[in-house]
Amino acid sequence: MNLQFSHRISSLQPSAIREILKVTQDPSVISFAAGNPSPETFPVADMSKIAEDIFTNHSATALQYGVSEGYAPLRELTFNRIKTKYGIGKDFDDLIITSGGQQAIELATKLLVNEGDTILCESPSFVGSLNAFRSYKANLVGVPMDRDGMDMNALEEALKTQPNVKLIYTIPTFQNPSGCTLSIERRRRMLELAEQYDVLILEDNPYFELRYSGEYVPPIKSMDENGRVIYAGSYSKVLSPGIRVGFACAHRNIISKMTVCKQVSDVHTNLFFQMLCAKYLETCDIDAHIETIRKLYSHRMNVMTDAMDAGFAGRATYIKPDGGLFIWCTLPEGSNGMDFCRICGNMKVAAVPGASFSVDESEIVPTFRLNFSLADDDTIRRGIALMSQALDEYLK
Amino acid sequence: MNLQFSHRISSLQPSAIREILKVTQDPSVISFAAGNPSPETFPVADMSKIAEDIFTNHSATALQYGVSEGYAPLRELTFNRIKTKYGIGKDFDDLIITSGGQQAIELATKLLVNEGDTILCESPSFVGSLNAFRSYKANLVGVPMDRDGMDMNALEEALKTQPNVKLIYTIPTFQNPSGCTLSIERRRRMLELAEQYDVLILEDNPYFELRYSGEYVPPIKSMDENGRVIYAGSYSKVLSPGIRVGFACAHRNIISKMTVCKQVSDVHTNLFFQMLCAKYLETCDIDAHIETIRKLYSHRMNVMTDAMDAGFAGRATYIKPDGGLFIWCTLPEGSNGMDFCRICGNMKVAAVPGASFSVDESEIVPTFRLNFSLADDDTIRRGIALMSQALDEYLK
Repeated sequence: MNLQFSHRISSLQPSAIREILKVTQDPSVISFAAGNPSPETFPVADMSKIAEDIFTNHSATALQYGVSEGYAPLRELTFNRIKTKYGIGKDFDDLIITSGGQQAIELATKLLVNEGDTILCESPSFVGSLNAFRSYKANLVGVPMDRDGMDMNALEEALKTQPNVKLIYTIPTFQNPSGCTLSIERRRRMLELAEQYDVLILEDNPYFELRYSGEYVPPIKSMDENGRVIYAGSYSKVLSPGIRVGFACAHRNIISKMTVCKQVSDVHTNLFFQMLCAKYLETCDIDAHIETIRKLYSHRMNVMTDAMDAGFAGRATYIKPDGGLFIWCTLPEGSNGMDFCRICGNMKVAAVPGASFSVDESEIVPTFRLNFSLADDDTIRRGIALMSQALDEYLK
Repeated sequence: MNLQFSHRISSLQPSAIREILKVTQDPSVISFAAGNPSPETFPVADMSKIAEDIFTNHSATALQYGVSEGYAPLRELTFNRIKTKYGIGKDFDDLIITSGGQQAIELATKLLVNEGDTILCESPSFVGSLNAFRSYKANLVGVPMDRDGMDMNALEEALKTQPNVKLIYTIPTFQNPSGCTLSIERRRRMLELAEQYDVLILEDNPYFELRYSGEYVPPIKSMDENGRVIYAGSYSKVLSPGIRVGFACAHRNIISKMTVCKQVSDVHTNLFFQMLCAKYLETCDIDAHIETIRKLYSHRMNVMTDAMDAGFAGRATYIKPDGGLFIWCTLPEGSNGMDFCRICGNMKVAAVPGASFSVDESEIVPTFRLNFSLADDDTIRRGIALMSQALDEYLK
């Protein structure tokens, strides 16, 4: 049989990185590769109690079909929370519950991007989103960034020169993979440029509430007076990723069309856990819960950077982020992060090579990404010690 | 702001039918419009017990990220069950867990269908799938059907004459909306034609296990020796639709690419309920459970057809199905099901006009669809009485 996939998908290849990451299936390997939250941060007791109540009193609703835009109380509680706390959402905005933040990205792409349209994104950027864009054959253009996020001059140049730009995709806060945060001045400038060149901004902000240091920087969406920004949020990093509950907040004209797309995609998000999240927001203190997550991850980040300072001894540099889940490391000039990560794998410690976050995955870059949220202190120290040996090996 | 949606989506309009179905939001309206299972059939006690066990003993796994192809034990249990009971799945086949059967349809379309490619489907067919096809700008061509399902001569003619046919989409068993079942001879012939014209069959079989009368007809997938058939199944009608757990079984080359598509769509299906379903399959008797569902729905179908025989008195005819959730009714020649359903709405009873299942929604057809699984006996009788009055009104 001659099996022909669609053009959009046949170009979507499993990457070389998957091979390297296969080592993480070996339980004896210490993995800093994933972006998993720590299970200690799942509010299991509260969730279990709420689940029991739903099974006892609301099962006929929770197990039945729901509406595609999401469980009304969860939409309302989520909207109220981001509006009150962070100034997100104007009168023209609406909110849809999605199956994780990833689905918000995918639906927005399906809704807005024709084959060949350009999406401008940070370089490097999150591979899950890049692949969603690729799966609709978008023309992906990476914009260079520094410690303060995407370079606005380079962004303007790209807006001027690239054909049919539809979206600026940004993870402005504790970016994945770089850990960098877009400065407030640049956020304002990005909005101005979006207005000037008549494009939309897709603001992907899953790590936003995990700040460990530095000053609060408001979401771009909170400055959006004209419905230019589609905001993607998630309960994955503050409650649980396995439940797949996220959301998008955008102009109601966009949300209503995203709802049509969601209906044909999965009808609606698991209703039981939408109800559970709503009840959690209503009856528990999510802000206090997030505070405990912040403390844990901030501590783990420090354990990791202390270990890196001792073991890497400047041979690999890194940017210490103000929050999020990741540390972005750079090997000496001319290095290949892919080769280094392969050596790490052999030494039973896993990191993600920087190339997997490149618009062009075959690019040779001297970077790699470490996650610090999942492993405990001792495992972090042992892993970084192994990685320091891998560094000896790679640089010898 | 000049908001431009993608070509694929701008053609996807909210239909006129949505207006008619708005009456169902009024709680005083008796609705035969939805396709909802009865909440009485949700195995709440078993699910609740399993959920408690998962929270107590497996929360670190259940609330964490999972793999895109689905929770391994659920994949295995599902595959074993459909293989053992129904002969589905050869050595070359694999299985992916999807967020409901709908996602299996959407992923298969994204994976296989280029803009303008043809999908052949029964006319009428399920609007959720038709909209998924439309959302990728497929060329939708309806093939006429009768009591034995899709007309094979008409199918061959379409295969000969339509450009770039990629898929034959069929709901072979207790079809939505017609209730008809594709005969075994036609199933064999459909497979032959798929081989001859080198196209794939997308077999959507969510109602398959809800048979109330007539002889068992094996799934097309069970006759598939060459990986021609993508089989979409669902736990929505036998456990709960709100949990959004379905699956696709197809050649491993297709499943591996669907997994890439799923990864960019929602990463994975709610892991907690994947684990819950696995444990349910392992420790409970799903076949006995399905037997109780069959008894309940068979009874309700008879209550409805008895009431129709008395109230409609031949003025609207129907085909009594051997299973499933729906009865397909036909008004006298020249009637417009849309007008009739509007009158029904005014009389506080809701049905879905046949046009919503047409490839061309503006088509004037004398049909409407009734659901019998949700309402209790008394409500069914009162609803059909109201509908009989609507018939008086419409035909006067």
